[in-house]
Parts: sequence; C-alpha cells; structure tokens
Amino acid sequence: MPGSARIEQALVAALDRAQRRPSPPKLSEALRYSVLPGGARVRPQLCLSVARACGDDRPELSDASAAALELIHCASLAHDDLPCFDDAATRRGKPSTHRAYGEEIAVLAGDSLIILAFEALAAAGRRAPDRAATLVLALAQATGMPGGICAGQGWESEAEVDLHAYHQAKTGALFVAATRMGAVAAGQDPEPWTELGARIGEAFQIADDLRDALLDEKTLGKPVGQDAIHDRPNAVALLGVDGAVAKLKAALGAAISSIPSCPGEAELCEIVRRQADRLTPAMPASQAV
Amino acid sequence: MPGSARIEQALVAALDRAQRRPSPPKLSEALRYSVLPGGARVRPQLCLSVARACGDDRPELSDASAAALELIHCASLAHDDLPCFDDAATRRGKPSTHRAYGEEIAVLAGDSLIILAFEALAAAGRRAPDRAATLVLALAQATGMPGGICAGQGWESEAEVDLHAYHQAKTGALFVAATRMGAVAAGQDPEPWTELGARIGEAFQIADDLRDALLDEKTLGKPVGQDAIHDRPNAVALLGVDGAVAKLKAALGAAISSIPSCPGEAELCEIVRRQADRLTPAMPASQAV
Repeated sequence: MPGSARIEQALVAALDRAQRRPSPPKLSEALRYSVLPGGARVRPQLCLSVARACGDDRPELSDASAAALELIHCASLAHDDLPCFDDAATRRGKPSTHRAYGEEIAVLAGDSLIILAFEALAAAGRRAPDRAATLVLALAQATGMPGGICAGQGWESEAEVDLHAYHQAKTGALFVAATRMGAVAAGQDPEPWTELGARIGEAFQIADDLRDALLDEKTLGKPVGQDAIHDRPNAVALLGVDGAVAKLKAALGAAISSIPSCPGEAELCEIVRRQADRLTPAMPASQAV
Repeated sequence: MPGSARIEQALVAALDRAQRRPSPPKLSEALRYSVLPGGARVRPQLCLSVARACGDDRPELSDASAAALELIHCASLAHDDLPCFDDAATRRGKPSTHRAYGEEIAVLAGDSLIILAFEALAAAGRRAPDRAATLVLALAQATGMPGGICAGQGWESEAEVDLHAYHQAKTGALFVAATRMGAVAAGQDPEPWTELGARIGEAFQIADDLRDALLDEKTLGKPVGQDAIHDRPNAVALLGVDGAVAKLKAALGAAISSIPSCPGEAELCEIVRRQADRLTPAMPASQAV
C-alpha cells in the first residue's frame, strides 16, 4: 500500500477509536475536523519511509507511529491557532478549529489528539511492548518539555530566546522523532537516523519561513506574515530570500548524504528529493507576490 | 516510605525531567507551579494503595503510575481554569495557572503535563515494557476520548447530556484508572480492582458536588457555586444535602466491600475509611456556611 493510503487509514482507525459512542458529539466531530483532510503529512511520510528502509517487520507499529506523529502535529495546530497564540481564523484552507467549534472545544480537541497519539502507540504495541514503550518515550520527548514542540512554543513567550533550542524544539524535534520512530518501529537502532530527521526539519523550518514571508493567505491556507507580527525569528529576515533558499538547499543535500546504507536507501533518497522539489520550486514564483 | 512521600518524590522526579535546561523559563516554572504544592493527591494515593495490596514488586512502575495520574489531574485543572471554561482566578488557595503566568503558558503547561505523564510511564517501564504499554493504554483511555476526562469536559459543551457517560468520564475514569494501574504496575490482573475505583470515584464526585454547593471560596481554595453558574448536574441539586450525604456513604460502603481478598486488604480498607472520614465530616459544619 502506498505511504499516503497507509497514513490516512491509520489516522481514520485512531479517530474511530476516539469516536466510539457514547461520546460528546461536538468534541467528537472536532477531532475529525482537525485531522481530516490533512496537509502534506510530511512527518508520517518520513516515518514510514524510514520504517520501510529498515525492513518494516511490524507494519502495525510503523502505521501507529506515523498516525501518532500526525495527531500530535494536528493537536499543535489546533492549540497554536487559539486566540491566546496566533488567533488564526483559517487553517488548511478552512476555519481553524476554534473558529469552527469554539475555544473550549479547540482546547479539548488538542488535548484529546495528544492523548490519542499515545493511545495509538500503546494499542499497536501488544505484540512488541518493548518497541511500544520506546516509541512512547521518543514521541513524548519530541512533544513536551524541555525539548519538544510545547517547549518550542513556550520560547515564544520569552523576552530572551535560546535560538538553537527554540528551532530544535519548535520544528526539529518532531522530524527527528519521525525518523527515529520509523527505525524503532521496525526494530532497528534509531541513532543513524537522527541526522536525516534533523536536516529535513531544518529545511522544513526554512521553507516555512519563506512561505510565511512570501506567500499570500489564499495560497497558504492560513494567515501570513505571522513571524513579523509576533516578532519571531525568521530565516528570510535573517538571511534574505536568496540566503534562505541557499540554506534550504544545503540542508536537503545534507539530509540525503546522511542516509545510512540500507536496503531502501535509493527509495528514501528519492523521497527526500521529491520533498526538496516540493519545498523549493514554489519560491521563485512566490517572490513575485 | 509512606505513600505521600513516595508520591511527592515521584512528582518532583518527573518535573525535574521536564525542567532540564535549556528550556523556556516561564513554562518551566509554570509546570512546577501547577503541580506543587498539591491537594490531597487522592488518585495517586489510591493507586499506590492498590499496588501495595498487590505486592508492589516494581515500585518504580507504581511510583510512575501515581505521578502520571496526578500530572494528568493537574493538567486538567490548569485547562479547566482557563477563561473559556471556568475562568477561575484561584486554585488550591493561590492564583490559577493562567492568572499567574498568562493564558498561553497555561495552555502549554497543561499540554506539557499530559505528555509528561506518558513520558514518566514509558521511562519507568524499561525493565517491564509489557506493563508500561498496558499502563499507557489505561491512562490514555481514562484521559482522552471517548471515555476520559477530556470527554467529561466535552459533555459540558452539549445541550443534551448523557449523564451516566458524563459522570463516568469526568470523574470516574481517572479513579478507575488509579486502581487498575496500581494492579498492573504490580503485575496483577486489573479486573477485580475496577469496582473499587468506580465507587470511590462516585463518592468523590458527590463530595465535590457537596463542597461546590456548600463551602465558601476561602475554605475551598477555588471559586464555589460553579455547577449552578455553568448549569452542570450536581448531586445536591438533584437529591438535596441529606440525600447526597446518604449516597456518598453508600458509595464508600460499596467501595470497601468491593476490595478483593489480598495480603494488603486490611490496610486498604483502612485507607478507604480514612478517605470516607475526610470526605464526610466537613459537611455538617459546612452546611452552616
């Protein structure tokens, strides 16, 4: 089954688990609304690619890992869009969760999706509980404090920011978790896969900075210019457009050369190259905006 | 070591893990602020009592379970106090997390404490990953959707409420998780311990309803009359004070008689009796308020 079909199927299975009756209807709907239809599913794609490169001997665990990463990402979007953070009216081209369902349901939807991510891992881990416990730990470290996406968001409330820790936590951590969890789900050592996640995370952060600085809201599906409004560090402000594009390409090059020798090496290089094409070509056109 | 010392030690160990540097200072402080000093730590006490009654052969796992239950409870308090829910100015006799640190930090503190709960379980489970995975699953089911405390809070946004599902999710689930996780942490079958958790949860819900209806804010350490303000079901409104007290005593009686035959049975009965004393005697005095 192609990666994208596996991911959607794993997400729907997790949502079905959370939506069993009786459950409060609005919150139940809001979970599905916050997850489907999705964006590029970059993190779960990366996780499955690494799992396949590592043999993927327990597909139920790599599917659950992919779903868990995306559930956490969707939870972070629902919370980041809240009035006390970005107060974003739109997300993925439709009203943000709190605009569609109200603030209280958006807080609870984010909470529930975080919990569902861990539940999905534990539920899939019955036949390989040692891997499941390692996956739970890896996901928690990429999500919470002191080094996960919560920490990344927390840095935005500080007057003095540790920039390296900020980027690492805000974007890097979940990409590193994606590659490491792909390896762990397939029973392999995660260490050789850390660099790949880190470099793709870096490239993704720069591409996100470029989009925030250069695209319009309709194209992007969410409000733009948020970094400038919220005085957040942005690679374009720091390096200019050309400098940022050069850094993005260098990060993707480093990502490809970090891929360890493995049976799926060629396929994985191809996937990263496709990510590179997806992330970079929009830029020259968008510079006209 | 007495239960309360073990619980505080396990909580501090979890918080220390979340506060390793570099981490954003405000969010880091807010985590500790939301957890220490605590309330009665009823759920972790119950969990440890059952673990001891079951032999407690892996104390690192029962400690982590106790801490995880309390971290989830503290997270739910930080989120429930937010302006979009109760908008509570005080909690445990001091400003609520969002009043002390701002709304964005309170959202992130709740998120981080939820994640930390799962991290604590996974980190403690290295030598017994099968139990750790089962504990993660039990905690997730008691916390998320469709049957956990998020679902309980979600029912409060519905015009038509399934009352049984509401109470079960809002209060019952975490008490049931407390007894079941105590058994699982000690390597025992959780089934015989479900009833004890359910009955204590019921008693606790009624006691909470009584306190909300009868005490003043200074005694309670948080705003009172919230059920009436938010039009939430309350046992006192439904049964009157005497009826509610009678139901509370019946639930505690049922709790005691549900305790399975085990080496720690007498000690556990004594602990439930002490809970009963703690929950009931305040009532007659408070009725004068």
